[in-house]
Amino acid sequence: MSIFEQRESEIRGYCRVYPVVFDTASNARQKDDQGNEYIDFFAGAGVLNFGHNNERMKRAVIDYIERDGVTHHLDMHSTAKQTFMESFAKTILEPRDMPHKMQFMGPTGTNAVEAALKIARRATGRTEIVAFTHGFHGMTLGALACTANQAFRGAAGVPLNHVSHFPFGAEKHTSDNPLSGGKDVIEQLRVLYRDGSSGFLPPAAFLVETIQAEGGVNVADKKWLQDLQALAREVGALLILDDIQAGCGRTGSFFSFDDYDIDPDVICLAKGLGGWGTPIAMNLVKPEVDKHWKPGEHTGTFRGQALSFVAGNEAIAYFDDASFLQGVRHKGETMLKKVSPLEDKFSKVQVRGKGMMLGVDVGSGDNAKQIVADCFADGLLVAACGSGGRVVKLIPPLTIPEEDLQTGLATFVRHVEKVMEAAS
Amino acid sequence: MSIFEQRESEIRGYCRVYPVVFDTASNARQKDDQGNEYIDFFAGAGVLNFGHNNERMKRAVIDYIERDGVTHHLDMHSTAKQTFMESFAKTILEPRDMPHKMQFMGPTGTNAVEAALKIARRATGRTEIVAFTHGFHGMTLGALACTANQAFRGAAGVPLNHVSHFPFGAEKHTSDNPLSGGKDVIEQLRVLYRDGSSGFLPPAAFLVETIQAEGGVNVADKKWLQDLQALAREVGALLILDDIQAGCGRTGSFFSFDDYDIDPDVICLAKGLGGWGTPIAMNLVKPEVDKHWKPGEHTGTFRGQALSFVAGNEAIAYFDDASFLQGVRHKGETMLKKVSPLEDKFSKVQVRGKGMMLGVDVGSGDNAKQIVADCFADGLLVAACGSGGRVVKLIPPLTIPEEDLQTGLATFVRHVEKVMEAAS
Amino acid sequence: MSIFEQRESEIRGYCRVYPVVFDTASNARQKDDQGNEYIDFFAGAGVLNFGHNNERMKRAVIDYIERDGVTHHLDMHSTAKQTFMESFAKTILEPRDMPHKMQFMGPTGTNAVEAALKIARRATGRTEIVAFTHGFHGMTLGALACTANQAFRGAAGVPLNHVSHFPFGAEKHTSDNPLSGGKDVIEQLRVLYRDGSSGFLPPAAFLVETIQAEGGVNVADKKWLQDLQALAREVGALLILDDIQAGCGRTGSFFSFDDYDIDPDVICLAKGLGGWGTPIAMNLVKPEVDKHWKPGEHTGTFRGQALSFVAGNEAIAYFDDASFLQGVRHKGETMLKKVSPLEDKFSKVQVRGKGMMLGVDVGSGDNAKQIVADCFADGLLVAACGSGGRVVKLIPPLTIPEEDLQTGLATFVRHVEKVMEAAS
Amino acid sequence: MSIFEQRESEIRGYCRVYPVVFDTASNARQKDDQGNEYIDFFAGAGVLNFGHNNERMKRAVIDYIERDGVTHHLDMHSTAKQTFMESFAKTILEPRDMPHKMQFMGPTGTNAVEAALKIARRATGRTEIVAFTHGFHGMTLGALACTANQAFRGAAGVPLNHVSHFPFGAEKHTSDNPLSGGKDVIEQLRVLYRDGSSGFLPPAAFLVETIQAEGGVNVADKKWLQDLQALAREVGALLILDDIQAGCGRTGSFFSFDDYDIDPDVICLAKGLGGWGTPIAMNLVKPEVDKHWKPGEHTGTFRGQALSFVAGNEAIAYFDDASFLQGVRHKGETMLKKVSPLEDKFSKVQVRGKGMMLGVDVGSGDNAKQIVADCFADGLLVAACGSGGRVVKLIPPLTIPEEDLQTGLATFVRHVEKVMEAAS
Repeated sequence: MSIFEQRESEIRGYCRVYPVVFDTASNARQKDDQGNEYIDFFAGAGVLNFGHNNERMKRAVIDYIERDGVTHHLDMHSTAKQTFMESFAKTILEPRDMPHKMQFMGPTGTNAVEAALKIARRATGRTEIVAFTHGFHGMTLGALACTANQAFRGAAGVPLNHVSHFPFGAEKHTSDNPLSGGKDVIEQLRVLYRDGSSGFLPPAAFLVETIQAEGGVNVADKKWLQDLQALAREVGALLILDDIQAGCGRTGSFFSFDDYDIDPDVICLAKGLGGWGTPIAMNLVKPEVDKHWKPGEHTGTFRGQALSFVAGNEAIAYFDDASFLQGVRHKGETMLKKVSPLEDKFSKVQVRGKGMMLGVDVGSGDNAKQIVADCFADGLLVAACGSGGRVVKLIPPLTIPEEDLQTGLATFVRHVEKVMEAAS
Repeated sequence: MSIFEQRESEIRGYCRVYPVVFDTASNARQKDDQGNEYIDFFAGAGVLNFGHNNERMKRAVIDYIERDGVTHHLDMHSTAKQTFMESFAKTILEPRDMPHKMQFMGPTGTNAVEAALKIARRATGRTEIVAFTHGFHGMTLGALACTANQAFRGAAGVPLNHVSHFPFGAEKHTSDNPLSGGKDVIEQLRVLYRDGSSGFLPPAAFLVETIQAEGGVNVADKKWLQDLQALAREVGALLILDDIQAGCGRTGSFFSFDDYDIDPDVICLAKGLGGWGTPIAMNLVKPEVDKHWKPGEHTGTFRGQALSFVAGNEAIAYFDDASFLQGVRHKGETMLKKVSPLEDKFSKVQVRGKGMMLGVDVGSGDNAKQIVADCFADGLLVAACGSGGRVVKLIPPLTIPEEDLQTGLATFVRHVEKVMEAAS
Repeated sequence: MSIFEQRESEIRGYCRVYPVVFDTASNARQKDDQGNEYIDFFAGAGVLNFGHNNERMKRAVIDYIERDGVTHHLDMHSTAKQTFMESFAKTILEPRDMPHKMQFMGPTGTNAVEAALKIARRATGRTEIVAFTHGFHGMTLGALACTANQAFRGAAGVPLNHVSHFPFGAEKHTSDNPLSGGKDVIEQLRVLYRDGSSGFLPPAAFLVETIQAEGGVNVADKKWLQDLQALAREVGALLILDDIQAGCGRTGSFFSFDDYDIDPDVICLAKGLGGWGTPIAMNLVKPEVDKHWKPGEHTGTFRGQALSFVAGNEAIAYFDDASFLQGVRHKGETMLKKVSPLEDKFSKVQVRGKGMMLGVDVGSGDNAKQIVADCFADGLLVAACGSGGRVVKLIPPLTIPEEDLQTGLATFVRHVEKVMEAAS
Repeated sequence: MSIFEQRESEIRGYCRVYPVVFDTASNARQKDDQGNEYIDFFAGAGVLNFGHNNERMKRAVIDYIERDGVTHHLDMHSTAKQTFMESFAKTILEPRDMPHKMQFMGPTGTNAVEAALKIARRATGRTEIVAFTHGFHGMTLGALACTANQAFRGAAGVPLNHVSHFPFGAEKHTSDNPLSGGKDVIEQLRVLYRDGSSGFLPPAAFLVETIQAEGGVNVADKKWLQDLQALAREVGALLILDDIQAGCGRTGSFFSFDDYDIDPDVICLAKGLGGWGTPIAMNLVKPEVDKHWKPGEHTGTFRGQALSFVAGNEAIAYFDDASFLQGVRHKGETMLKKVSPLEDKFSKVQVRGKGMMLGVDVGSGDNAKQIVADCFADGLLVAACGSGGRVVKLIPPLTIPEEDLQTGLATFVRHVEKVMEAAS
């Protein structure tokens, strides 16, 4: 019996889907301890935008360690943090005229969401949050109340209060997303918020993802998201944009909402921000909201992660070069071109997504499970998401070589076809 | 204006206490970007038990990176994780006959506590948790409900339900800890739990620290903790031991409760576990409790931190050598010998703690603040904790050289004396 | 200064609208202590269906008192209760083949709703309740969470959890009721309840009024209410029908939903049930739901009100005579005929209602307030309800003499016309 | 099968203890429909302080009905209410220099408590309430959260939040009341409230009974209650005194706390206030608290109960005559003299109480049940209360004739002796 079977908690999950022991990895390729190699279309659930062991990041991190750079420093100042913040401000915030402050917290996405909820409640003096169907925002109690999936909510063991869910306004109509576009929902909310006898009060914030990744790769309708922001402004609520999985270049722009013409009050980032897989989380908070914090109110031991700042600084450098995001968009088109014919071929298949995040809804969790297992057996890592796990998500590193991308796509399409044919 | 003043959130805290930019660090010494050097009696709030840039860990981590070891892998298996788990089982669990399973989650202490609360509620089918006055357990909503300090609770913005607090049974009587020993509280609870008309129902779990670090370095009375465990067993509740700050060698044994003769159902670890400052969190959960988890119910992107496993594996190796903990205990005695005379000299001073964690209660937050500032100006990093911030905490790296320890202690004692004399 | 100004709480309300001291009353006429007479189109907010000091009830009550009938007996058996229950079973339940049990509780509508919520939660093992926009269900914390009006909710002082509101499916479209018919809402809920990632879980119960009286006299669409019942059955939730204000003959049948072809699991009654104004409340609960109660779980000192049983028994007798309800329907038509022309005359006026409950929406709370004041000055009691108090409600005693009805209607129409003309 | 077995809810309780159908009653004697007669030592759970069908009240009520007095009027003014309020102010409030306002609400004790909680939360801007072990305050969700007994709490079906319980400071030490006197608890709370790191925040109010009737006839220690009031004042919390069962003359003075030298901010009254068993509830609220109400914020259909005002006015008249309360105190001494020897005779028996409310703790619910059944079979109505139902409560009408009192006491003592002898 392996140490994992002997001693690891029953909660372990992905290792059941990929029952091998991984050893080394480089860019989009991963090797197990038996020497088997895998193309990685999962990228650490969206963390490894720049590939495993990105060479530029490796060098920067090793140099930093060799010169005894401060590794851990809570929220004290460090030169590593200084450099990261300067780069982020210059490359990301200033070109967009974003006045937002950067807040670092415990280095997990859920912690970023918790901090966002706190400051929204503080700044508005309200308690209620509106989140959306199929939204995923984390596992700690405050964030979990915003997560829609009952498989996670059911583990809370206590009621999840002060959050209500409304139908997400997806670009594409899906069977579990009854309101395509969802414009009516916004107008309906407006009426309800105005009516003192409706039982509805304006919330502290609306918490939304541009692209619901875990929720099944549902892309928000642009007009809907704009309407939502307009409603938020009207009723004195904040707009919190959770860009933890879809941000940091994944969709072909740094923020997933760069072409949505919106201006969120708080933006949650994590996953890809640190560049190569060490933890980091950061909220961007408008100064007029941020000023409501008192020093040290939301602490966290690991909130200053120097290695993540060092590698993350290298990640930001990618965005200084316009050709990088052009490449992402180009690869995204390649992915879509290969995968979208599945829609025509199988009535139960729907392809959704943006840039280098695609979701292939294969109609049932069983189909998806089979496809994931077959791909793995064939040297490709993909994972399922969405309602009942029926969507297979493709999120290769943005830096994946063209050849690996093609190989992986071919493998994927082959197995979807096989499974869908067998299922029909 | 520095980038920090321009762009960092108002919530930043420690950087206001130590208003410099740190650059490099080695073992117990830290340098700022102006070349000033500081002896570190804070150790990253208890993270850096093995010092900054511990040589053994540096080498292991760099080797791992150089050979393209998998850095990020969620809860998939990796060779780094395998090695860590095997070492931990062999060095820590097996000698103690501990059957506990290891659960990894988002790498923050608060996340470990959230997971512990979930499994306790699930395993017992109950909702309520009992925590204790001055307890500190984290910032996310579930853990925050257990944290006693109102400065943190007040930021929640929503009611913190399903947790009640009872007086902590401290070894030493303190003015904010009205029940010395606290045995009566346990007996009182027993009567209340037995009485169906008391308004009290047995909780899912009692959540307690052996030593309340953030709470002011309050050491639990041994008998009280045993009585608490007995009460928990009697009423069908779990005992969750939060050893996040006091564990991993800090008190002269691996677990802070090794000499308490108790057997907690769940143990939360984080901070020092990763060895050199990269994030990690782990719960040890008895199999009969752990079996209530369903796969993937408490996920987290960064729950498999390979660098922390690699460095943490080196940390575990320290505990294979009995002389290491002897050294810790010896240094602890040195600290106590130097500091305890302050108690005799100043009636308002009380010294508390165990091993290499000492708390010097200087009677008021103002006194403590002055001492911290004076020490910093004199090249020593210490921080305040406890009710109103009136306790100065001394937690140097366990690996601190004797000379640095002596220098630091002398500096500290000198400034306490100066401030206390001025205050009287 | 009167005793009321000196000693009555600032919370007093209706006495500010009708600033006189009432002394005597008979059927639909009320006199103040100065001898001024008023026609009563308010009937104690729907209590006095059989008029003030109904002769039959007076005689029965006085006889009961004179013979020393037990007046107060909690939930012990009494001959008064026996007679009431036998009459109710024979006249109301048996002809409808209703197997429901009768539960008596503290004699207020809010208490009936609290008991209904408890048994629904117990019977289903669920916590959440769905109530509807503009619904009114009472003032105690459990019922208040179901009441939609923020003017009442705001007094709770604590969050009102475990209840969510959905748009009421009104027969007529109104500006504050955005979804006319509301069929889509039911279908939308069905999809959301089926989807494990929607954030929506089926509730313990749907709590609904056939006619929202306090909410502005909104009549439920028949098909909508049937669809709601179908959804409830499908997802394992109970249907609780709050018939406290609209029941007991008010709409031309005993239950307000007699012609809706539905079969609620729990029906809440109070107000008119006791016949002449002494308190009583009763739930009708299907046996398979009722069996989940343990004896004495929802107690209440005043739950056996003998005078209310005695008078209520006389009230039931009215329903043995078919001509009584024919008369109610006839008077209802008279009311509608007189009032509905206001709709044609004023674009802002909408008339809603059923039987002898009419609501005249006059577009604003200011208009309604003026109309109520003018009517009062002219000897007619009416009261406002609905969002912002913009609906004037007409609920005369069912026993009102034809002449008083005509006089009152003429007064009312006259003042509506005057105010609406002035407002346009 | 009787109509009760056929159609009454399974929740019915007292009728199972007294399985007969009561018909008539006069003062302390009740007759069933078979002509059997019972002496009533239960008095409608404390409602019938002036006996069944009190002659003075009967006459006043019949006169009122005969002259068509307004029976139901919500919170409009009426001459009946005017007279009641004037009498209450003159006889009860003015002699005590009490500036309190009178607030009427839905006529149940639980409704009075709900209103008290609302105004306390509003006036302090706080949410938490402190109630006490064995306290009983009602069945609706807000009041139920304050009630300690799990048999009632368990029926809520949702968490009961925003209330915590502390040990009641009883005059006599009991096995389920671990802290005799309880002075330490108050001092402990004071320390905890002062300490910002204790997890304890001062509440909106302390809600307490002078004598816990349902809780087992526990009499509050005088000093403890004074200390509690002092603590409340210190921390800015209100003192709410629930005098619903013990008030209105029961203990030998109008308020049960008349000799405690305290000055509660809010006093809840109901039960005995209406005199002869028709429902009424009233809060006395200090003007500086009451002014926080907005008109109509806590409504209730039956909040103006004219018959209760009429009969209640007669009840107040009793307190104009000093000899009445002297008589009550005298009868109380008679009761105590007869019953207290049981304490000496049986080690498991403890006698508690004040005035004409005695509780005889017979050590177990089984003993108490047997005594209640034996007494009933022997023509005496008594009921059980307290933890596990182990206390038999004696609360005869205050107007009981000396002979009935003696007969009842003899019956009671005889059956206690028989049962306790059999049990030992």
